[in-house]
Amino acid sequence: MTENNHYDELEGRSADERSKGQFKKLVAQLVHAKENASFFSDVLKDIDPSCITDTKALAGIPVTRKSDLVEGQKKLPPFGGMTALNLGQIGRLFQSPGPIYDPEGRQTDYWRTARAFHAAGFRANDVVLNTLSYHMTPGGFILDGGASALGCAVIPAGPGNTEQQLEIIRDLKPNGYCGTPSFLRILLEKADAQNVDTSCFKKALVTGEALPPSVRDWFVARGIQVGQVYATADLGAIAYESLAGEGLIVDEGVLVEIVRPGTNDPVAIGEVGEVVVTNLNSQAYPLIRFGTGDLSAVLEGNSPCGRTNMRIKGWMGRADQTTKVKGMFVHPGQINQVVKAHTQIQKGRLVVSNDDNRDAMTLQCEVEAGNDDLIQAIAQSMQTICKLRGAVELVSLGSLANDGKVIDDIRSYK
Amino acid sequence: MTENNHYDELEGRSADERSKGQFKKLVAQLVHAKENASFFSDVLKDIDPSCITDTKALAGIPVTRKSDLVEGQKKLPPFGGMTALNLGQIGRLFQSPGPIYDPEGRQTDYWRTARAFHAAGFRANDVVLNTLSYHMTPGGFILDGGASALGCAVIPAGPGNTEQQLEIIRDLKPNGYCGTPSFLRILLEKADAQNVDTSCFKKALVTGEALPPSVRDWFVARGIQVGQVYATADLGAIAYESLAGEGLIVDEGVLVEIVRPGTNDPVAIGEVGEVVVTNLNSQAYPLIRFGTGDLSAVLEGNSPCGRTNMRIKGWMGRADQTTKVKGMFVHPGQINQVVKAHTQIQKGRLVVSNDDNRDAMTLQCEVEAGNDDLIQAIAQSMQTICKLRGAVELVSLGSLANDGKVIDDIRSYK
Repeated sequence: MTENNHYDELEGRSADERSKGQFKKLVAQLVHAKENASFFSDVLKDIDPSCITDTKALAGIPVTRKSDLVEGQKKLPPFGGMTALNLGQIGRLFQSPGPIYDPEGRQTDYWRTARAFHAAGFRANDVVLNTLSYHMTPGGFILDGGASALGCAVIPAGPGNTEQQLEIIRDLKPNGYCGTPSFLRILLEKADAQNVDTSCFKKALVTGEALPPSVRDWFVARGIQVGQVYATADLGAIAYESLAGEGLIVDEGVLVEIVRPGTNDPVAIGEVGEVVVTNLNSQAYPLIRFGTGDLSAVLEGNSPCGRTNMRIKGWMGRADQTTKVKGMFVHPGQINQVVKAHTQIQKGRLVVSNDDNRDAMTLQCEVEAGNDDLIQAIAQSMQTICKLRGAVELVSLGSLANDGKVIDDIRSYK
Repeated sequence: MTENNHYDELEGRSADERSKGQFKKLVAQLVHAKENASFFSDVLKDIDPSCITDTKALAGIPVTRKSDLVEGQKKLPPFGGMTALNLGQIGRLFQSPGPIYDPEGRQTDYWRTARAFHAAGFRANDVVLNTLSYHMTPGGFILDGGASALGCAVIPAGPGNTEQQLEIIRDLKPNGYCGTPSFLRILLEKADAQNVDTSCFKKALVTGEALPPSVRDWFVARGIQVGQVYATADLGAIAYESLAGEGLIVDEGVLVEIVRPGTNDPVAIGEVGEVVVTNLNSQAYPLIRFGTGDLSAVLEGNSPCGRTNMRIKGWMGRADQTTKVKGMFVHPGQINQVVKAHTQIQKGRLVVSNDDNRDAMTLQCEVEAGNDDLIQAIAQSMQTICKLRGAVELVSLGSLANDGKVIDDIRSYK
């Protein structure tokens, strides 16, 4: 593949060019957020935006987590002070389950999915059946905006009424599909059962749920090439697959970091952690270091397709591991506080079990060397910080699983 | 009201300015349609677009009726050759019940409803709950496009899930509503029953069904000012109410004529007939003299709000009066053929009855003077043209009801 197959010149930038361009945007975005979004005025009160010129400096800004957003919206409805425009100045207003309110700014392709459609092989004048809902939640518009910006014709079908969708497939012969992979499968199987020809479909952009390799293979065997886009109702597109099929390439309009769950701290390349995203392009909703609650990891190197941006693995689970032990909440942030209180600990993991139906917790700590004094000191910190007694186990460096888990709840309730 | 209350300067144009501006656009549109839409190439094959410079010349172009559209789409799917762009070049593609396919071009506010929102008192930064569906049919987008173009924030709620809508009303406090009047009533009554405060609503743009005066009064008593827009899935906005509340003002982007049902012939001002619309603004779908199948009549004079365009009365029923008599189809066009065959007849109306459960038809004819010879001649024409025997009754000029009916089917099947 050549650069001609890129959506724009941004995708082929050198790391240096990209960094310069994005951090310039970031500084402006931080100034905008600090001035116009009361929540971020508070988060950034001790931060000088002009100093945030590299990833190290960025890591000094506290992460705002999805749970902060939910609480914030309750305290200061509807947007918790995270929007930088008045309600009426925002383009569209959505309600996702929670309820959580999501704003859509007025920019063309506000959710930045045109790039993902392009990478999945979509081009101008394609006819695209869009089966995400346009009602209440932004899913339908997230995809509609990108396909439209790319110059495709969109059929806003929504997620229901498969009989009518088959009629539309028969009459309009769309060559593209966007929506969940499971709904595409439902449509195709129903079409088979009714002898409706679906050979019109040549490409699909799927999102919203995992795409197991067997399902992808099933689509490909029917002549449908499939790309994925990882997007959320707060941020729009975060990362997307190219036809090279090796990981998800980070979108050019966001900064992505992987941090240790419950903390503000980026993990090493390849380590599993929480996906934290800074939106560089939204005037309406300048989310800064927003913790998505999703787990992923950085994939080293560049994609063979020539896109040079950072890649991440797909979705690897949920990062929010807050749990209740003996009726008390235990947050990953507390465990990280314990870990940080002892410089000897490189990495920690709380295992919550329930032998004999009694909750028990053990903090496993990676250390180079340790002794009973260290164990006692750590146990003391844990009791002080978590208000709960727990065991401490010292383990060798690198022995804890790389799965992003700070709290591993292995209780069973049979 | 002053011109400052108009959406743009087009609304206050003199009749002469408007005519010049619109017929200039019409000529260009006719050229475009004739060159790029095969159906209209055929309709306009004997027409020189440059000669269509006034309403009289326009009346020489055959009316394309909704039934032609339905047949055309079946013969030449999906758009019957009435679109002037390839499928993939069109912005969005919809399917309305029928099924009938409706294209949406890529222009901002393609359906031209911003003007109607404005006339109903909506302004930039209003927050608007849109309860028409965005799925399959274009209703949601018809309103969304106009509210967005006006600078309002839109909540794409769709027509279902009233519980969730009440939650949204409580949290986002929209000051505007758009959708059907009946759904607004359902929402407000449900809110009352659950003690949800709906005093946020100050204005509504309603469409899609009749707005009985009692329902309007009920909204107004709750502090909600209501405007109507008459729009269809083929044409978008045709006419709209202003706050003056006297009839519907024709949209600046269309030419509206009232014709005798089943014919190409404009009726006199005030006479009830079929609404025929020519879309001056759609590059995608240049509908020329499109018979909507709706009945209305021109309201003489100008609106007190200062908008100078032609006004029509609201929806007065359906124009398509095709019926079956003794198992044979009788079309309004046949009755008009009979009427035209006898210059003495000013106006005709076929009354279909079924005394003793036997179908009978009587052609009532307005004449200045007549005799048995005329009656016999008319009866003969009727039998030749309709292949059915019927009675003829001569009546005095102006005695037939002004209700747009060419065929009045008064049969009862008790």
